[in-house]
Amino acid sequence: MKNVYYFGKNKTEGEASMKYILGGKGANLAEMTKVGIPVPAGFTISTEVCKYYYDNNKQNPENLEQEVEENLKLLEAETGKKFGDENNPLLVSVRSGAASSMPGMMDTILNLGINSRAVESLAKSSNNPRFAWDAYRRFIQMYGSVVSGIEHIKFEHIIEEKKLEKGKKLDTEMTAEDWQEIVAAYKELYLIEKGAEFPEEAKKQLWGAIEAVIGSWNNERAIIYRRLNKIDENKVFGTAVNIQSMVFGNTGNESGTGVAFTRNPSTGEKKAYGEFLMNAQGEDVVAGIRTPRLLSELEKENKEIFDELMAVFKKLEDHYRDMQDVEFTIERGKLYILQTRNGKRTGLAAVKVAVDLVAEGMISEKEAINRVEAEMLNQLLHPRIDNKAKSSFKLIAKGLPASPGAVSGEVVFNAESAVEAAEEARKVILVRAETSPEDLAGMNAAMGILTARGGMTSHAAVVARGMGKCCVSGCEEIIVDENNLQIRIGGLTIGEGEVITLDGSTGEVFLGKVPTVEPEMSGDFGTLMGWANKIRKMGVRTNADTPKDAKTARDFGAEGIGLCRTEHMFFEEDRIFAVRQMIVADTVEQRQLALEKIFPMQKNDFKQLFEIMAGLPVKIRLLDPPLHEFLPKENEDIEKIAKEMEITVEKLNEKIDSLHEFNPMMGHRGCRLGITFPEIFEMQVKAIMTAAKEVGGGVVPEIMIPLVGEVREFSWLKERLAKIADQFGIKYEMGTMIEIPRAAITADEIAAEADFFSFGTNDLTQMTYGFSRDDAGKFLKDYAEKKIIPEDPFKSVDQKGVGKLMEMAIKLGRGVKPELHIGICGEQGGDPETIKFCQKIGLNYVSCSPYRVPIAILAAAQAETNQ
Amino acid sequence: MKNVYYFGKNKTEGEASMKYILGGKGANLAEMTKVGIPVPAGFTISTEVCKYYYDNNKQNPENLEQEVEENLKLLEAETGKKFGDENNPLLVSVRSGAASSMPGMMDTILNLGINSRAVESLAKSSNNPRFAWDAYRRFIQMYGSVVSGIEHIKFEHIIEEKKLEKGKKLDTEMTAEDWQEIVAAYKELYLIEKGAEFPEEAKKQLWGAIEAVIGSWNNERAIIYRRLNKIDENKVFGTAVNIQSMVFGNTGNESGTGVAFTRNPSTGEKKAYGEFLMNAQGEDVVAGIRTPRLLSELEKENKEIFDELMAVFKKLEDHYRDMQDVEFTIERGKLYILQTRNGKRTGLAAVKVAVDLVAEGMISEKEAINRVEAEMLNQLLHPRIDNKAKSSFKLIAKGLPASPGAVSGEVVFNAESAVEAAEEARKVILVRAETSPEDLAGMNAAMGILTARGGMTSHAAVVARGMGKCCVSGCEEIIVDENNLQIRIGGLTIGEGEVITLDGSTGEVFLGKVPTVEPEMSGDFGTLMGWANKIRKMGVRTNADTPKDAKTARDFGAEGIGLCRTEHMFFEEDRIFAVRQMIVADTVEQRQLALEKIFPMQKNDFKQLFEIMAGLPVKIRLLDPPLHEFLPKENEDIEKIAKEMEITVEKLNEKIDSLHEFNPMMGHRGCRLGITFPEIFEMQVKAIMTAAKEVGGGVVPEIMIPLVGEVREFSWLKERLAKIADQFGIKYEMGTMIEIPRAAITADEIAAEADFFSFGTNDLTQMTYGFSRDDAGKFLKDYAEKKIIPEDPFKSVDQKGVGKLMEMAIKLGRGVKPELHIGICGEQGGDPETIKFCQKIGLNYVSCSPYRVPIAILAAAQAETNQ
Repeated sequence: MKNVYYFGKNKTEGEASMKYILGGKGANLAEMTKVGIPVPAGFTISTEVCKYYYDNNKQNPENLEQEVEENLKLLEAETGKKFGDENNPLLVSVRSGAASSMPGMMDTILNLGINSRAVESLAKSSNNPRFAWDAYRRFIQMYGSVVSGIEHIKFEHIIEEKKLEKGKKLDTEMTAEDWQEIVAAYKELYLIEKGAEFPEEAKKQLWGAIEAVIGSWNNERAIIYRRLNKIDENKVFGTAVNIQSMVFGNTGNESGTGVAFTRNPSTGEKKAYGEFLMNAQGEDVVAGIRTPRLLSELEKENKEIFDELMAVFKKLEDHYRDMQDVEFTIERGKLYILQTRNGKRTGLAAVKVAVDLVAEGMISEKEAINRVEAEMLNQLLHPRIDNKAKSSFKLIAKGLPASPGAVSGEVVFNAESAVEAAEEARKVILVRAETSPEDLAGMNAAMGILTARGGMTSHAAVVARGMGKCCVSGCEEIIVDENNLQIRIGGLTIGEGEVITLDGSTGEVFLGKVPTVEPEMSGDFGTLMGWANKIRKMGVRTNADTPKDAKTARDFGAEGIGLCRTEHMFFEEDRIFAVRQMIVADTVEQRQLALEKIFPMQKNDFKQLFEIMAGLPVKIRLLDPPLHEFLPKENEDIEKIAKEMEITVEKLNEKIDSLHEFNPMMGHRGCRLGITFPEIFEMQVKAIMTAAKEVGGGVVPEIMIPLVGEVREFSWLKERLAKIADQFGIKYEMGTMIEIPRAAITADEIAAEADFFSFGTNDLTQMTYGFSRDDAGKFLKDYAEKKIIPEDPFKSVDQKGVGKLMEMAIKLGRGVKPELHIGICGEQGGDPETIKFCQKIGLNYVSCSPYRVPIAILAAAQAETNQ
Repeated sequence: MKNVYYFGKNKTEGEASMKYILGGKGANLAEMTKVGIPVPAGFTISTEVCKYYYDNNKQNPENLEQEVEENLKLLEAETGKKFGDENNPLLVSVRSGAASSMPGMMDTILNLGINSRAVESLAKSSNNPRFAWDAYRRFIQMYGSVVSGIEHIKFEHIIEEKKLEKGKKLDTEMTAEDWQEIVAAYKELYLIEKGAEFPEEAKKQLWGAIEAVIGSWNNERAIIYRRLNKIDENKVFGTAVNIQSMVFGNTGNESGTGVAFTRNPSTGEKKAYGEFLMNAQGEDVVAGIRTPRLLSELEKENKEIFDELMAVFKKLEDHYRDMQDVEFTIERGKLYILQTRNGKRTGLAAVKVAVDLVAEGMISEKEAINRVEAEMLNQLLHPRIDNKAKSSFKLIAKGLPASPGAVSGEVVFNAESAVEAAEEARKVILVRAETSPEDLAGMNAAMGILTARGGMTSHAAVVARGMGKCCVSGCEEIIVDENNLQIRIGGLTIGEGEVITLDGSTGEVFLGKVPTVEPEMSGDFGTLMGWANKIRKMGVRTNADTPKDAKTARDFGAEGIGLCRTEHMFFEEDRIFAVRQMIVADTVEQRQLALEKIFPMQKNDFKQLFEIMAGLPVKIRLLDPPLHEFLPKENEDIEKIAKEMEITVEKLNEKIDSLHEFNPMMGHRGCRLGITFPEIFEMQVKAIMTAAKEVGGGVVPEIMIPLVGEVREFSWLKERLAKIADQFGIKYEMGTMIEIPRAAITADEIAAEADFFSFGTNDLTQMTYGFSRDDAGKFLKDYAEKKIIPEDPFKSVDQKGVGKLMEMAIKLGRGVKPELHIGICGEQGGDPETIKFCQKIGLNYVSCSPYRVPIAILAAAQAETNQ
């Protein structure tokens, strides 16, 4: 059994593929070394040693010690230093590292090998006694707590006391002498706690550290972590121990340290971007005492090193086939790479880098597709806050990032004011405790919406996303005083007309007008979308109710409308009056008279959508919300509207009362409404079919019945509605939403009658969890903190619960009708995780709000490539 | 192939088991004849003829005509009459009859064989020309419409005109001459409509009728009926045609007719009970012109016939082994039985007959169990309206029979008045538009509850059933004007203090005090319950929150408590104050102070229940409803309570506002509440365990967490609560409701953590259908009328939807934990249909309201015997 694997110039015995033997960290160090990256040399004790140790009553393999000795020799030879030497000591780091990263295991011990004599020579050779003593006290502290189990806080207390004594506050104020005194105090602490001197001997230190790493594999936190994350212990059976030579960037002016990206992480430009400091350690860059210099200056400072670094960057990119985020150190003019990883980047950069890498022949189009996190496209599709300017504005509150974009405007507190302002071309932000359908006109008129209550799927959030309008919801810190037209936040009061800025991508609210940056639809974006469209098999449609939305979505590549909600149309000013007449009607005849007034307008709505979506399918959902949503709530409005309608306030109030529901979400809406008042649905079907006929050829309207839970609901309506639709002699389809758990459970019966299914995962999630999305915000916050339901279940489909119902519905439905066309039109249809799930379970398409169409296209392509 | 089967004295070729060949009716006629019951003779053309007819291009089998001829000859010989004869005509009836009864098929043609000459001889022989001409016109009418397809209304018009002409109103006023003129007019109508004379020839009439019966098998209504009812056409492949000789009870004083039960259908007494009329036809008994005589008088009138009838009754009971409901006719001193069927009976009679039949050795105990419809026991358990007195009172409205019993009392309109009245020992009915938890004290104080809104599972209905209190809910005809203390129904106004009577078993509301009859728990009831308890395997527990309920249920035979709802306890006057303090508390500490006040009272609640249920399991559900239910709603109350609590109205209003929910049913309740405010659940668990400890041995408390939808909700709470419960060193169980669809879907995960499951089918039905039970009343009425959901889904478990989820939960749960104890504690747990389903899917027990315990016991025994 081979126990130890060397990596260095002389030889490298591992590579990336050996991560189960060497751990992730060890395998990567070997890999880098192998391809010629100047990594500080070292060696890895394999994970099999750990396994052997636990299988054999905590004994190491017999030949381990010898192998470590041999490798130490190799390391000394390569570094020209000597482990445990007084004059030229080889210092090493010791780190754990399993095949899966595992919080709870021992992390890192640095500077191992130092002792009371070596520290002096280090002080001399670095010409920096403060650094040397600091390095020593750090080592004692890490070793003392991690290996010897002395409470960390006790070391901290010693530092605190010393600072008090010296009248100092920051670590950076401490001198070499201060650290030296602390080293003494640390050693005293060690002696008291452990009853023995702190080990001077390097070998003893090393074996203590090795044992601590192996021991940490079975500490409680690590065990719990493995259990909770269901880590397969047949594969991940132990931790490796990585022993690597230390390099220092602060040994003089020929040394230095830096971090850099191989390309620009903000723009994606193919030009290394980073910072460095000469005669410094990594932490100096972070501490902010000295200002780091831009990487471009390194070329002037040290052309040779700069060129070498660029060559390394090239090699790293060639090898890892992606933009890298690199930590490097220069020790006495020699370059070392400490770490490399794929660099984090903005959406813009992600797209550019991916497209460039294809052009450079480094990755395939399929790979490029997977290099951009779909969600990040959001950043490209909306204006965004100018990060440079942001810091000069007051951040007054933070809510939920309900609908992306960044907008500024005067604060208004009701829909009327918003509409008035829009007529005067003033930009406003509509601020409400929460929004209701009555606010629609105001939401449409405003630049953005801010609400104090309601989650990511509250009315405000859903409507705003549908409109592609910036929204911050559930901003619970603010009190919206609609009577006094004020926002109060702590001591701050903001009145009507004052300007605020919303960042719908972060949930931040600023006082004043923060500059924004417009999105650029670069050519790269188009290229990437082209590849995604070529690769994906699942369709992408849009949820659109207005010509504007439909147009936007089609421009973004939507292949039709998956959900047109007709209720928003009913709120339009020119018809709300007739809608209300329809609702307060006492007889079917009165109701039909009112519906006749609405009919031509509805027809026109559909005609416009059909024209914009020419050649593509359009799915129209018949009226869904409970009727009371169309009636006024405030006394003032009731009086006004009663007067307009020429009925008594009593009569209107009586109607409103009779429509009151305790739980409207589970009340008289959807197909239930259609069954009680079939004339409403009949008018809508007539409008749809007339519109299709007038537009002429190519339109296949898809009529969708909402909220079906029992097949007879569907068939009763289908029979009536088909009588009307059939008169037009045009092909059409009639199908149903699957949004009630019972619909999923009885999908076989429903499939026998319906032409298509469309999953309404908002409602399905509500009913499956028994969560009202308007109310759940309160406790879901608590649930997330307590890790009971870590993620908002309305964001991604809950695969264990809601997803199981979806799979059941598909299986039952296609069992009866194998060619059944099935899509999703809930909000989650635009969520990449959900889209991947939809692909897996065999959906024909996803449908989402217009501004999420590109995200869905990319996610669908990714789902296709990662099956 | 044999086409025709004879039944009569000479020979009988069929029997009951041949119903697929002879149809239900034909097989039964044969069966009765075979056992010696004097049935008018006749013959049946088999269902195979019908099948042959349709399989062979609408041709009859070759030898059918010959067989009919032969059987007619036999019939003539037996009756001594001759088919088509002028002087002594044999008249027959012709009826359809398939193996399943099937509305939409041809029903009956009577008096076939009569013609213009035979009518004269019939007039003579019966000495009753009016009867003869009426018989003739009836035949023409039936034949003309059913066989020849002339619209029925045209015949009615002729009669109407004749009555106008003659100045008569009722059929009974018509004379022989009138009918004779109508016969003439009918024949004229026939000639005009069909272009041919009405058939005089008996054979022609007969074949016309046979063809019409066979033709009716494939008319549209019958086809739709078969499709909708999924009738298996491999077994039920056609209709038979029954041709039977007519007998007449109105041929003179030696003839007569009657209907009788072989035992008393009201009391079950073993004594024939019925009515008869001499020289009369069946319809004369119905028409109410002559007063029928009691059967007992027949003995004096005609001892011989009476004895023969009693002998037939004995034979029928012996044969059918149940009480019979018999139609008979005496023709010239000869007794004929026209029909017999199992007699409908009251609950009281059902129990007595069943117990008596066992004593008589006619049926087994197992059969007796199945002779009583479980639901009928309700009649035995509550006072009921005295049916004799009922007609003298004004029925003012009809609502839903929400909770059985019959009570009278003065009308009051709010809980306070009800409580006051109770203190003065006045009996009142609490009338509300709808009830809320604030009305609990008033509901408890009232004799009964009447609401204008809400279904069978509204708050009022559920609470009333739990209290065993009479309730009529959803009485939509009445307007409850709570401001003016008035009920308005049409023009009628009922003020506070006026007396009304509710019948909670029918939903009827009467003005005034209708006398009632107290229930008698007869010894037979006890006997039957004893058998049921011996036979059933599934357990029966009760839903009980109060000592009174628990006591009632235990007396009825409940084997423990399946659901104790703790929220009702929170409303008790002595603690609602502390509960409200707990809710408005700003800090955990304040909340805990308030909870400490509630603790001793809660403990006492549980102690009482444990004592009453000594030796039996008690399942306690932790607090379930949203907190706002405990806070006042009306401004007046808010002011009062704020004052009491020494906080500002603003603060209380703020709290109420912050607790407001759009859909409270899907809001912050159940375990969600326990996770946000664990101290509430902790207090409850401490109270439960302290009570168990104080009561001492034998109590195994079962702690039930409500509204779990995700296993981590349960395990998070379990971890906290077990820390408390474990301190008591008493055995206890901790389990969960399965009432959220997601709990059923992820039941495997939950079963790994929970000790038991209890299905909460109220909530499960709500979420699975997406129906709020407080709101669904409005459209479910419509759904029932339109046959979309014919039965209230909250009454019996919806087996296709909710039931499927239950089966899934059981399979997943027991897959992980095979011994998992599973019950049901929704309202449906007391519904016989549901209980049968629960037995089928393997539940360990059902739990229901105290007054339904006997029903559940019987239903469980029936389920066991009918597996």
